[in-house]
Order: sequence, then structure tokens, then C-alpha cells
Amino acid sequence: MTYRYKAKLQYDGTNFAGYQVQPNARTVQGDLEKALRIMSKGHKITIRSAGRTDAGVHALGQMIHFDYPFHIPPQNMLRALNSLTTDEIAILDILEADEQFHAQYGSAGKKYQYRVDTNQIISPFKRLYALHHPYPIHLEDLETALKDIVGQHDFSSFCASRSGKENKVRTVYEAKVEQDLKTGELVFTFRGNGFLYNMVRIFVGTLLQIANGLRPADDMKRILAAKDRNAAGPTAQPQGLYLVEVYYDKAAAVKGTIFEEQLKEKTI
Amino acid sequence: MTYRYKAKLQYDGTNFAGYQVQPNARTVQGDLEKALRIMSKGHKITIRSAGRTDAGVHALGQMIHFDYPFHIPPQNMLRALNSLTTDEIAILDILEADEQFHAQYGSAGKKYQYRVDTNQIISPFKRLYALHHPYPIHLEDLETALKDIVGQHDFSSFCASRSGKENKVRTVYEAKVEQDLKTGELVFTFRGNGFLYNMVRIFVGTLLQIANGLRPADDMKRILAAKDRNAAGPTAQPQGLYLVEVYYDKAAAVKGTIFEEQLKEKTI
Repeated sequence: MTYRYKAKLQYDGTNFAGYQVQPNARTVQGDLEKALRIMSKGHKITIRSAGRTDAGVHALGQMIHFDYPFHIPPQNMLRALNSLTTDEIAILDILEADEQFHAQYGSAGKKYQYRVDTNQIISPFKRLYALHHPYPIHLEDLETALKDIVGQHDFSSFCASRSGKENKVRTVYEAKVEQDLKTGELVFTFRGNGFLYNMVRIFVGTLLQIANGLRPADDMKRILAAKDRNAAGPTAQPQGLYLVEVYYDKAAAVKGTIFEEQLKEKTI
Repeated sequence: MTYRYKAKLQYDGTNFAGYQVQPNARTVQGDLEKALRIMSKGHKITIRSAGRTDAGVHALGQMIHFDYPFHIPPQNMLRALNSLTTDEIAILDILEADEQFHAQYGSAGKKYQYRVDTNQIISPFKRLYALHHPYPIHLEDLETALKDIVGQHDFSSFCASRSGKENKVRTVYEAKVEQDLKTGELVFTFRGNGFLYNMVRIFVGTLLQIANGLRPADDMKRILAAKDRNAAGPTAQPQGLYLVEVYYDKAAAVKGTIFEEQLKEKTI
């Protein structure tokens, strides 16, 4: 008999070799499973997450689930897990979950953000938390390109070639950018029903080339049609990327986007 | 023949054993002097700063000066110094300075900030940049206590006992706190004509005890009168502290404070 729990967590990805367990490297999953093993007096507990994040990538709202051999109050588990992990990981919330809940397969969508520091001199306080990219930004071209990736498309051009996934059709519900002239930061937001390996980072690498005038504003259409990773721009560095939220309900995933009405009409 | 330059810099103090050079430890001054040695093809150049900062303490506007054996355009020096130091240090600005300029002795005052994260669970993204202090804050008591430290006082009670400075009279021009309910952050700001060793950190350690009701709201008066380090609270952790600005002009140092009028009347 085991008891399923689900948890929401944040982590600073800087000092981890990524989320997923791997031999001879410190990972978020590895640290969490080590804590659970101590808490449960030696049981090997495997954690499932909504998605992996690469080395250097951060999370504001990663979701996990696991089956625990004892029934303990979620608040006690929250305190224990936070005290047995370093401050680089914060477990924000733990709830009992039913057997059907699955952090990955149950997900209806995700939200990512990508932060870019456009100031001339790199800030010591953003070096691990944003991409430094001190070049002029053509905001209108950027917004044209962002519109072109919203919707259901085959995103093969925006998938790292090492990925073996068959079906590369995904729906991007929202793709937007906000510019903060006071701090010199650009913040990209992407929401969709699923993301291919490195998809957001290749979006940003390509979008910045468009924003800098290195590619035409309407290039996204051509790149999508090519279904070829070589047609897109470079993969942006990991430290600007944040997994912000995982949705387990389609209504929440599309809320506030142009897809909200379609969902009500059941046409999506 | 040497040429004096002054520079304004930021640094993330996390990975440094403090600002000042010391044997067998990485310091901000050490990294900068190493860069100058490379740039000048082997000259040993000593940097003077407005003030030392301890291990883990950050700077948004530290000031330094040094005498360089060659005359080179400040913009070239800025680029060279930034490229020869890690991204943990950002040289924001370099100017030629006259022989009389001295980063430390010429200073008319300084501004420090201290950030406190009052959220229940420590944020992975603030752990190195704020003090985690998840306790209820009585803002009114805090403001009473802050008022009591403004002005000219003997701050012996707020000086680390290892300090040997004779005269412990300083003037605090401004002492305030801002509470951001959205982020759960408290930001203290202190401006004064000079600060004793650990003075800001002992202020904050004591102020938080007052804010938490562990000391009466009017305790600052008693502590100041005692002129005894043991009368004050603990030294707050270094990672919340930022050296924000160094003033070389009294009018700038007191601008916007209750001392501005006094300066105009030349009574200060």
C-alpha cells in the first residue's frame, strides 16, 4: 500500500546538472529522492515530474508526484522535504492526490518564461537568471513573429534534433513579450499544450535574430513550413528559462488567450 | 608618471571572501588588481575603495580609484576591465580623476540597503540576495525605532567589537523601511556620513527584534545611550546587504532628507 502525493516546487537550476536523475551528477530529482529516502527510512521512491528541465534552467512552478509508503499529513511532509533539501529547492505546496493523478501525463499545458537582459554591461545579479543580449530590439518585428507561432503547428523546426518524439504537432496558446524599459529586461511568455525538447530556447534564439534584424519579421512562417531544425536560429542559453506553471485543466491552460472562446464552443 | 582613474562598480558578493585583498582567498579587489596587472603588462597597481564589504555582501555602486602607469581612454579601460573580470563584477563607469580624488577619504557619505524576505518558505532566488526572516512585522514599532537612529549619535553599540576606530560618532541622514506586500520583501535604506564596522547589519539585527516584539519600540534610545555592543541585537547575515551609493558631495548625501535644509543654512 502506498499513498500518492503531488507537490509544486521552485528551484534555482544554476548548480544542478538538470532536473532528471543521472549518474555522477547533482540533479533536482536526485536531491528530492534522497530526501524522501531519508524521510521514509530507506524506501526507494521514484518521483515523476511534469517535465524535465536542463542544466541551468529554473522553475517557479514545477509539478511532481510520488507514491509514499506511509500516510503522513501533507504539511508534515512539506516541512520535512524543505528541511532535507538545500535552499536551492523550495517545495511550495504538497497535497494528497488520487491514484489517477500523473504529473506528466495528466498535464493539459505549461507556461514558460524567458528573461533577456538587454543592458550594455552584464549585471552581476542577472548573469545566472537571464540571457545577456545587449543589442537593439525591433519590438514590432518581434510581435509579428510571436503571432506567427501561436496556434497548432508542426514544430519540428523548433525541436532539438536529438529528440526522438514522433508527433511534433503542438498548440501554442500564447506567445508574447513584455519590455521593461526601466530595467532593460525583455520577458517572453509562452503557453501551450506541450513543448518539444528545447522548443522555447529555439523560439527565443530565433526571435532575437528577428528582433535584431538578422531575419525578416515574417520568417517564422517559412521556418515552420520547413520542418527542419536547421531552418531556425540558435538555442538560447539555459539560464534565461523558467518553467512557470503546469496546468491540469484545459480551461486554466487557455484562460485569457484567444483559445478560451473556442474551448467554450467545444471546437478546439 | 601615473594617471588617476575612478570607477563605479557592482558585484555579487556571494563567491568572494569580501572586497579587500587577503592571502589565499578570492576577493573583489584581488580580481580587479589581477586584471589591471594583465592590462598594464605586469605593473602592480593598488586599488583604493570607498569602503570594504564583507564576504557575501553585495555592491550596486562601490567606488574605487587607482593610479595607472599609462594614459588610456576611460572607455577602453572600461571594456578591458570588464572583459578581464568575471560577470560577478561589473564596472559601470570609469572616468579620469584628478590627483586629489580619493575614493575613501573624499567620501561625504554612503547609502546602504538591506533586503529581508519575510515569506514563509525561503525563495531559491533570494537565498543569496536577502535575509530570510519569516516572522510577523510590527511596522509602526519599526518606524519608531528607525526615527531614533536618525541624527548625530555615538554608535558604539552598533559597532563590531573587533573594530578599533576611536571616534564612533556618525550622522545618519536617513533610515527608512519599505514593505512590498506583493513580494513579501522588506527593504531598509540607510544614508549617513559614515558607517562603523558592521553598523548596518547590527541595525537590522536589532530592528528586526523590535519589529518582532522581542524588544520595546523605543529600545534604540537606550541602546545608543549604553555605548556597548552587548546592548544591541545580533549582526544580521551578510547576503541581505548592498552598498548602493557613495557620495562625494554633502549636498547629494543629504538630498531629500531632513538635513537638506540645515545644509542650506550652513548649520550642519
